Parts: sequence; C-alpha cells; structure tokens
Amino acid sequence: MKTLKQTGEHAAIAALTANLKFTGDDCAVLPLDALHDLVLTSDPLICGVHFDSGTDPEQIGWKAAARVLSDFAAMGADPQYLLINLVAPPEQEVGMLEKIYAGVGKILAQFGAELVGGDLAQGPVLELHVFGTGRVPKGTALLRSGAHPGDVIYVTGLLGGSFGSGKHLNFTPRIREGKWLRQSGLVRSMMDISDGLATDLRHILRASGTGAELDGARIPKNGSLEQALFDGEDFELLFTVRADEAAEFDFLCLDTLEQPFFRIGKMTGQFGILSVDGSVLERKAFEHFSACGVL
Amino acid sequence: MKTLKQTGEHAAIAALTANLKFTGDDCAVLPLDALHDLVLTSDPLICGVHFDSGTDPEQIGWKAAARVLSDFAAMGADPQYLLINLVAPPEQEVGMLEKIYAGVGKILAQFGAELVGGDLAQGPVLELHVFGTGRVPKGTALLRSGAHPGDVIYVTGLLGGSFGSGKHLNFTPRIREGKWLRQSGLVRSMMDISDGLATDLRHILRASGTGAELDGARIPKNGSLEQALFDGEDFELLFTVRADEAAEFDFLCLDTLEQPFFRIGKMTGQFGILSVDGSVLERKAFEHFSACGVL
Repeated sequence: MKTLKQTGEHAAIAALTANLKFTGDDCAVLPLDALHDLVLTSDPLICGVHFDSGTDPEQIGWKAAARVLSDFAAMGADPQYLLINLVAPPEQEVGMLEKIYAGVGKILAQFGAELVGGDLAQGPVLELHVFGTGRVPKGTALLRSGAHPGDVIYVTGLLGGSFGSGKHLNFTPRIREGKWLRQSGLVRSMMDISDGLATDLRHILRASGTGAELDGARIPKNGSLEQALFDGEDFELLFTVRADEAAEFDFLCLDTLEQPFFRIGKMTGQFGILSVDGSVLERKAFEHFSACGVL
Repeated sequence: MKTLKQTGEHAAIAALTANLKFTGDDCAVLPLDALHDLVLTSDPLICGVHFDSGTDPEQIGWKAAARVLSDFAAMGADPQYLLINLVAPPEQEVGMLEKIYAGVGKILAQFGAELVGGDLAQGPVLELHVFGTGRVPKGTALLRSGAHPGDVIYVTGLLGGSFGSGKHLNFTPRIREGKWLRQSGLVRSMMDISDGLATDLRHILRASGTGAELDGARIPKNGSLEQALFDGEDFELLFTVRADEAAEFDFLCLDTLEQPFFRIGKMTGQFGILSVDGSVLERKAFEHFSACGVL
C-alpha cells in the first residue's frame, strides 16, 4: 500500500476524487438560480506547514481568509460567506485566537464578505480550515480548461520569494482584478498561483490539453527565475487571452487600470510540455507530502 | 491570559464570535433567492477526539459526512453540496483514505447530496473538515430560538450509550424526519443532539429565553438516565411543539409516520433553569477542552 509521501499530494487527490465530478478548478461551480452560479471552496492553514508558531496571529487570520478569497478571484467570482473550523490544543490562549479572528475580520471587511459560522475543536496543533461560498453570473466563471494553443499567458504581479518577503502572510487577494478580468470578456482560462508558476501552469495545461512556452526574461520576479517558477504562495492570477485579442486586451488594461498585466509566454499544441526559454522544464514543484517539496 | 482548557469550548466560541452575526444554530441561514434560504455548516472530525485510530475507515467517512447532514436535519433543510479538507500525516496509506471517501460517498448517495470539492494537506493526525451547503424554503428553517414556555419537548429517538453501541459512527442523520417536522408546520424550535441532551437543551433555553422540566421516565434511553442526559453524539433531533397543538402533532405523526415521537418534558418560563424529575440539574456536560468533559 502506498503512503501519501510516496504518492504525493496531486496524485493522491486524483485517486481520491476519481469517481467524483471534481473539475480541479480553484472553486467548484454549481447551478444556483436563473442568473447566478454558486461558487464553493475550502482551504486549510496548518501550523508548521503554512505558517510557523511565531507568526503574528492577525496575519494567520488574514492569510487563512486571503487564500480562500484568492480562489474566488481565480474564478472571477464575488465571495459572500465564510465558515472557519478552528483546531487548537487545550493550552492555546483564547486571546491569541481572538487576534486571529480580528485578522479574518479585517480582510473580510475589505472585500464585503462575512464570517457566518464554523466550529472549534481540540487537536494537536493550531489549524484553520476556511470554507467559502460566492457567486458569479451564470456560465461566466473562468476555468482552467479554457486555454487554447496560441493563447498569450499573463500574470498579475511579481512571482517568487513570497516566504522571504512575508507576502505569503499579508498578500491582497486579486478579487478586484479577477472580477475585472472576467468582465473584460477576453480571458479564456484562469487560476491563482499558490504552488508556484511551474506547478500551477501545468494544471492549466492538463485541463486545457495544451503545452506552454515561457519567456523567462518577461516573468516579473522577486528573486531568481527559479524562485519565480517554484517558490509558490504568490497568490497572483495566471490567465490566458486569445492571441489575436491580446492587443485589444492590453489596450483595455491601460485604458481602465492604467497599467498592463505581464505577458510571460504562450500556449502551444504540445500537450503537457512546459518549456522555459526553449528548454523543456522537468517536474519540480511544491507538493504536500512529497520528498521533493519546497516549503 | 486564559487558555481554551480554562475557558471551555462554548465560552471560547462566544468570545470569538462576539462581534459576528452568529445565531448559534446548527447551520447559518442566509438569503439565497426569492424562494429559498442558503444553509451553511461545517464540522471537524479528528482522530483521538471524534474517533480512534482503529476505527473502520468507511465508518470514519460516514460519520464525518453524517455529522454535517445532521446539522441540516436540525434546520429541516435539504443538504446539497459538501467539501472536505482532509489532513493526514505523510505516512498515511492512500488506500485507507480511499475507503474514507467511499464511506462519504455511501451516505451522500442516500441523501442526494454531492461531494464537489475540498483539499488535502499535511498535518500530525488524521482529520476531516466537512463543509456543507443546503437549502430551505425562505423563512422556514427551524431555529433554537423559537421555543416558548409551555411548549412540549420532543426527541426523535434513543439517547445515551452512543460510544458503547457504535451508533456515534454509523447513525443515520435525521434528514427525512427534520424535513417532515418542518413541513408539519407545528414545530417551533429544533436542534440536533451532539453534545448530550442536557447541554444541547440548554442551547435552546438560552436562545429562546426559557427554562425546561424533563420527565426522566419518558426520555427514551439506551442505558441510564445519566447517560441519556450527558453521553452525547446521539444525533437525534430535539424539538418543541406548542402545548395546545401537541395532540394534533402526535396524531399527524401516527397518521403519516405510523409512530409518535417521544414527549420528554415541557418548556417553562424560568429562564435558564433545567430540571429533571423536579430537581434542578447543575451544569455537567461534554465540552471540548474542558476538564469536566466526557468523551
């Protein structure tokens, strides 16, 4: 019998969800009413995995909620309601937990979302499991599966070095950008970058049946190219635009946002092949449980 | 600074949610569309707290989903979608996790709900955090706050001994009964019994501003009166019916269900006072983190 460590996170998820209607997108998209789809997501935040025990409690709360909001951004959706399951050891100070909830409250106020429920249970380490519901106009959620060969690949901001800079704790989820990108009507596929550009772009390749060529020099970086490709927890948006609409898209960005997003490469027809500056990139990425994981 | 162990679960939740619009019901009830309310809930299931490491994996999955379904039952709501955050150590066998998901799938199929998403992360012990969304016709969700002095108190089935009998692992959530009770139009307050009759009835007393007198002989028991009051994890429904409508209610039960529910006492006007067979019952109940907790 294989263990999670031997299998790796993504293969284990694939095995566990083989019989389910999981699309693999950042959120599940489900029929809600005549005008809207319901958008659902959940994210864990675990001490020793996603933050360390010395982290400012307000930042723990901020990050836990921001990760979920980033999933909504990735669909172009509006977040509405959050629930939090908090796990903590009996000796945990309640005052510290109050600060965590203050951090959650601060970010939710910025984005008009509400914490409406959850639970509190005993466990060996501090964990937050955040569940979110949101909405998107019917049929307009941006998926990973919409890319086509030739599409221009974009990102919304700097990649890499998120753990060193502290961005992984205090980032602003790209809710406004995600919604703008959906409303532009020119974006064909989208996701957020949580596990690193290389790993996450492969999700789009798999879902869309494409390959990709990246131009290393054009990737906006905080640190080295390797960091931009593999560090993870950037929480920028990764999306594609039809090649013959990319100029119009850039013009629209300049016109209404006063700055363009970053063109970093293009989609190809070579299924599953990811290359950077002409060289095929082998798998190396953050995976929970995996021996080659990078925290 | 106080720790969770000193404060106890319920006081800590009260402190953490003081500034939030938590009603304290089994689910949060929120506006959805012209005809329905959206119903949201989440429950943790943690190895060493809610099950032990020798538990049959299918039963772990069953229980994790059944707890959430029981919350929907408590509102008279229909469950729709579930997400699961699964936490496991790297050495966890993937085959065992597949069996857990099989258990989830089995119970969801019985109640027409679907697992649509979730996440998998590394942590020290096996945990499932299950989030659920459901629906209820607008304004009809049964709350803890609807009881009035004089109301007859009912339960749907046997209380106590759930850990000894294994019921805590393989119970059938009272979804059908909950929906029937809502549709009867005669139930004024409802919740499910997860922490034991005494503790959970106090939630109704607090929310409704009432007291309660129980008739020990009439409580359906698996074991002693003390077990029925304090054991917990029964997952039966606890509800109240207006005194002058109770006879009509019992007739309706006999007529359409072919058996009555169990009358166990009545609501009083003595706020917060819970008595059994004429004696006031002091606090003693299962609380996570609390020294006096009973697992």
